[in-house]
Formats: sequence, structure tokens, C-alpha cells
Amino acid sequence: MENVRVGIIGLGNMGTNHAKYLYRKAIDGAVLTAISDHNEERLAWAEKQWGDSVQRFQDPQQLMASGVVDAVLIATPHYSHTELAIKAFENQLHVMVEKPAGVYTKQVKQMNAAAAKSNTVFGIMYNQRTNPIYQKLRDLVQSGELGEIKRTNWIITDWYRPQSYYDSGGWRATWEGEGGGVLLNQDPHQLDLWQWTTGLMPKRVRAFCGFGKYHSIEVEDDVTAYVEYENGATGVFVTSTGEAPGTNRYEISANNGKVVIENGKLTFHRLRTPEREFNATYKGGFGAPECWEINVPIRGNHSEHQGITQDWINAIRSGSPLLAPGEEGIRGLEISNAIHLSSWLDDWVDLPVDEDLYYKKLQEAIAASTSDKDRSASKTLDVKGTY
Amino acid sequence: MENVRVGIIGLGNMGTNHAKYLYRKAIDGAVLTAISDHNEERLAWAEKQWGDSVQRFQDPQQLMASGVVDAVLIATPHYSHTELAIKAFENQLHVMVEKPAGVYTKQVKQMNAAAAKSNTVFGIMYNQRTNPIYQKLRDLVQSGELGEIKRTNWIITDWYRPQSYYDSGGWRATWEGEGGGVLLNQDPHQLDLWQWTTGLMPKRVRAFCGFGKYHSIEVEDDVTAYVEYENGATGVFVTSTGEAPGTNRYEISANNGKVVIENGKLTFHRLRTPEREFNATYKGGFGAPECWEINVPIRGNHSEHQGITQDWINAIRSGSPLLAPGEEGIRGLEISNAIHLSSWLDDWVDLPVDEDLYYKKLQEAIAASTSDKDRSASKTLDVKGTY
Repeated sequence: MENVRVGIIGLGNMGTNHAKYLYRKAIDGAVLTAISDHNEERLAWAEKQWGDSVQRFQDPQQLMASGVVDAVLIATPHYSHTELAIKAFENQLHVMVEKPAGVYTKQVKQMNAAAAKSNTVFGIMYNQRTNPIYQKLRDLVQSGELGEIKRTNWIITDWYRPQSYYDSGGWRATWEGEGGGVLLNQDPHQLDLWQWTTGLMPKRVRAFCGFGKYHSIEVEDDVTAYVEYENGATGVFVTSTGEAPGTNRYEISANNGKVVIENGKLTFHRLRTPEREFNATYKGGFGAPECWEINVPIRGNHSEHQGITQDWINAIRSGSPLLAPGEEGIRGLEISNAIHLSSWLDDWVDLPVDEDLYYKKLQEAIAASTSDKDRSASKTLDVKGTY
Repeated sequence: MENVRVGIIGLGNMGTNHAKYLYRKAIDGAVLTAISDHNEERLAWAEKQWGDSVQRFQDPQQLMASGVVDAVLIATPHYSHTELAIKAFENQLHVMVEKPAGVYTKQVKQMNAAAAKSNTVFGIMYNQRTNPIYQKLRDLVQSGELGEIKRTNWIITDWYRPQSYYDSGGWRATWEGEGGGVLLNQDPHQLDLWQWTTGLMPKRVRAFCGFGKYHSIEVEDDVTAYVEYENGATGVFVTSTGEAPGTNRYEISANNGKVVIENGKLTFHRLRTPEREFNATYKGGFGAPECWEINVPIRGNHSEHQGITQDWINAIRSGSPLLAPGEEGIRGLEISNAIHLSSWLDDWVDLPVDEDLYYKKLQEAIAASTSDKDRSASKTLDVKGTY
């Protein structure tokens, strides 16, 4: 197959990054042919960078109808992901959507339905799925090495953002602009990996959000969520953009031991006798199964965004299965929506989330917004250090 | 002052340990003069060990009235701690009570009131307060090094107990016998240290207990508790006796950085600019305060039970202040009661706990008990490895 002609929709922080590596032909079998952005300054910048070799559009629908793209990478603010993706599917274009898949599950279901009706390849920019450390954890779970999971615990508070970050874009950290805070902007990867590595979706959620706790924003910047799974396991997810330095520590306790991922290292504390068996047979009162601390080797390339884009291009060209199918974007979002809803209702929320109730509550939050941000203000930040 | 004559009430696992070191004169200024236990086999064992140099009583009240003790160390099952302590105060005896202070706060308040009316020294066996690592953490908080606390997180799941442990004593892990599970038996130290190191008591608690989740017992062996403090900080406490190997990791995030205690090491991640100041002044969007990873030296002797007993004896002899005053036992218990109550009510619980409601709910749990344990069965286990 010939090169896939890719258009980038949205030249903000992430879109610009994708455009740059595509332009320099870092992705085999792909060529950047077009970009779109509503902002004229950004279009002028693009012209300066790439001249007329990359076509420029102010309206993404014109880009989609231009005939110069086979595929689009959508890197606009969250709310527009689904609408643009649906339009792209209608144009029989392949789609790579930035995370999150959307802002509420009702919307994302429509996008997934449109994808199913089209004959295109739909991926989501879950670049953390290319991280060999999380692939190894998933391997340990899926292969049965870990055994039945008892507890998950992710402290992911190393998303520190100062106020000036939030002041840099009019859409940032508003219900209307982003539909949430740390859960929608920083955590989509971890919320996805939480379910992807374990193969478990929570059955119900009880969560506690601090809204504008550490910043002058209206959305959540501090979250503690407790979850229960179908198999009886429990879990905790703690996240914040208000702590420095933060922590990124993911622990899973299971019948065959415990895995901890922290500081780029995966440690498997492996029991020689599974705990449930030991519990039933050991007669000594005090005592525990013999445990080996294993530093599991992590091999492979953490190819990040380019890895996901390459994987998507390969799927388009050869039909290979995607590492991060777009349809799976709803899972992490469902957890995110459940966390918001539980906090708003101050009560348990069962999964799947009541999508109409969530939508209603989100509209209430938007209506009640007192944000006086200049919505048109927007500044492209250096994304070094973001994910 | 002459040697303090100490009587041990209860020759179970812990009482036997205390008696042994007191008998061998490991505590300056103290001498073991009497023991009491309802169990004749244990009395026979005591006679064999110590002959008539240590008087033996089946009834603790006889020991208290014997005139051969100035002070008693109470190491009986939890429920009887308060009643025995009150009797001892009425006999003008100094008291050291094993943890927990009691089973419900209503009871412990009566004990504290009796202590206040007596002219004696009242200590509690919070031997973990002698651990220099927790003393150092308390120092970092109290001296202001850490600044305002934002979040506490303690994963204390290294209490693994197999079923045979629970089968070793008729009173174990029943509502009637212990008034709870891991919170009452294993966690009293951590619940105390959680408040002692931070100087913060939760304002309200939302907790989730698994009752008999990993063992054939009726009380909780798996707990996740979320708390909120008056200053806006939040916290999580996760504990279990059903995981192997467990974790013991205590993290505090604060305005001046973060402290983590794990594997016997205290690491202070210290910001050069406090986060709140950085947040307000930094204009760069992405960025965080410079952070130094400091391995704080931990000096001093972790003197454990003997350290607490020595401290108590010193206080009796010289009037020195106690490291672990008995009256403070109510704090950790209050958190423990709040966790139970929140789980039972499936709702928030404010602190101070409604003591009458807690008492009522506890009686309901006792009444609903289906435990068919032989209450008289009791086996003294080797306490090596317990705290």
C-alpha cells in the first residue's frame, strides 16, 4: 500500500508535536499532507514551517473533504473529539483520536457506533500502552503468574501544575472547555492502564473530589477514588495536580504475591505457595508463605506517541491489530465519569454509569460555572514533560 | 524511690513476654512481684518458671488487693482493659494498659475519667512510639519542616495471618471477644501513629470494611478508609490480614514536599520553594519547584515494649512525662470506631464518633454473631514477629 496521507486536526500542544514527527517522516508509511486549526496565528506558523507541502485549513470539515487525506489525527480540545471523529468516519477516513476519547460516555458511544459502521481503522492515543513496564504487568496478570487479584492501588500525584498552566488556555480546567480537570486531562492514560493491565473494570465506585482545591479553577485537581470489582477485589486511585513532588506508584496484590511499579522498576514479590492455599493448609498460627523478591526485566522500546501512530499506520496498511483500539477509550472514561458522578452525588455509583444522569449533571456544572476565563485566550505551551 | 513492684494481669502472648523481661530485671527500678490469669495451666507454668518469688492469682482483683504490687500491666483480651484499669485506679495503682485502650470510646472515656481521679501514672503500650523513624517524622511535622499537610496515605497490609492464627484463641476475631479484627488487634499502633506523627485527627471518615473476606471469621480483615481533616487535607488508610506479602508504606504530602517511610527508611523530598508560594508566583506553565531527595538519618534506639515499660517506670519514680500517656489511647480507637461505624452505616461518620450509636451497633454485631468458636479454647502462640 502507498503512504497513508495524514491530516492533523488541531495544532495545539499535542497536535503540533504529532505534526512535527509526521512531517520529518518518522512514521514509516505515513506522510503529513494537511493540518487544520481555527487559529490564524497557528496556520501562519504552519505555513512558515512547512510551506505549501502541507495544506492548511481553518475548518476541519474542509480538511476532511479535501481529498488530500486518508486519515486524521484529532488533537483538539476534548469535547470536539467525538464530533470530529464521527464526521471523519462518515468521510471514510481512518481516525486517531487524542485522549480522552470524549468527555462523557453517551457521546463516546455514538463515536464508537459511527466507527463500527465505517470501514476504517480507529485508534486512540494511549501512548502509555507502549510502555514495556505496563505491558509486562499485563502479561503477568494475563498469563496467570499473579493469580486472582485482591487489591489495586495507584497513587498518581506527579501531575504537578502551577496556576500559570491553568491560565494558559481559555478552555483549560472549565466544565465547558474540558469537562473536568485532572481526570480528563492528565489521568486518561492511568485510568486506561488501570483497567488494561488488570483486565478488571470496577463494579462500583465511591469517590471524593476536591474542586479547585489547589488552584483557581472550577474542576477537580484532587481525587481519591475507592472501587470494588466483580471478583471482590478493591482498589484505590489517588491523583492530584496540587502536590510537589508527586508519586507514581502502582501496586497490585494478588493470590500469588504482589507487584509494585515505581521509579521505572517492576518488582514482583512472588509467593512459592499461593496465599489462599497457604491460608487453608498452614497450621502454625503465625507464619506466611515464602516470598521471593524478583526484579522483573523490562525489555522493549517505550515508543510513546510515535509508537501508537506507527501502530495505527501499520493497521491501516496491513490490517494488523491495534495496541490501542479507539473503541476501548470508553473504559477509562467510564471510570472517570463514575468518579465525578460519585463525588457530585456524594454516593456510590454503579458501572456502567447512568449516561443520561452523568450528562445532566455535567450540564448543571457547566450552567453553574462562575469561571470568568477568557475563552478565546490560548497559548501553546512547550509539551516537554507531558504525556 | 524504691523499685516499683509490678503485677502482670493476663499471661497470654503479650503478658508472658512482659513478665519475662520484668522477671529478668531488664527494666531499671522495676520488679515483677505478681501475675494473674484465669487459666490454671498458665499459673502452673508461671510457678514452674518463677516459683514463689512471683505471687500467682486467678482473680485479678485479688492481685490488686494483695498489697504486693504498686503498679499493674494489663495484658488481657481487649474488652477487659478498661474495667481492670478502672479497678486498678480505684486501688491507687499505676497502670500500663496493652493496646487497644478498649473496644469502644464510651468505655475508654470512663477509664480516662477514673485515671484523672486517681493519683497514679497511666501509660499505654504504644511501643511503636519508641521507633525513632516515627519520632523523626513527628519532629519534621512539629518543627514546621514539612509545612501544612495536604495528604496522608498509609498502606499497612503486612499483617498477614493464616486461618490457623484465628483458630488459636476462642476470643480472637469475634465481636464478642475482640470487638473487631485487624483494626483492634493489629492496627492500634498505626492508627495511633497516624494521628501522633501528623498531629491531625480526622474530621470525618468514609470507610469500607471486608468482614471475614479472607478468613473464616466474622470481623473485618480488609479495610480501606478515606478521611478528611479540618485543614482540608485528606488521607487514606488501607489495611488487611489477607495479603502476602504485605506493604508498609506511609506517605505524607505537604506544602514543603513529601515524606515516605518504607523499608525502614525515611525519605524527605524537600522543595526549595514551598509549593503554595511556587504556585502563586511561577509564570512558566509547566514547571515545579526544585526538589531535593534527602535520606534523613534516623538515630536512636527502637526500644519497643521494654522502652515503653521503662518510660512508665521512670515516670512513676521521677515524675517524668510519658511518651505514651494512657489517656491518648482514645484517639486511635476513635478512628477505629469511626471506620467500623462508617462501614456499618455505609455512610460518612463525623468525629468525635457518636459513642452511644457505636455501642449500640457493636451490641447488634455481637447479638447477630454466628461464630461457633469454642470461647474457652486458647493457645499461647509464639509472639516472635508480632508487635
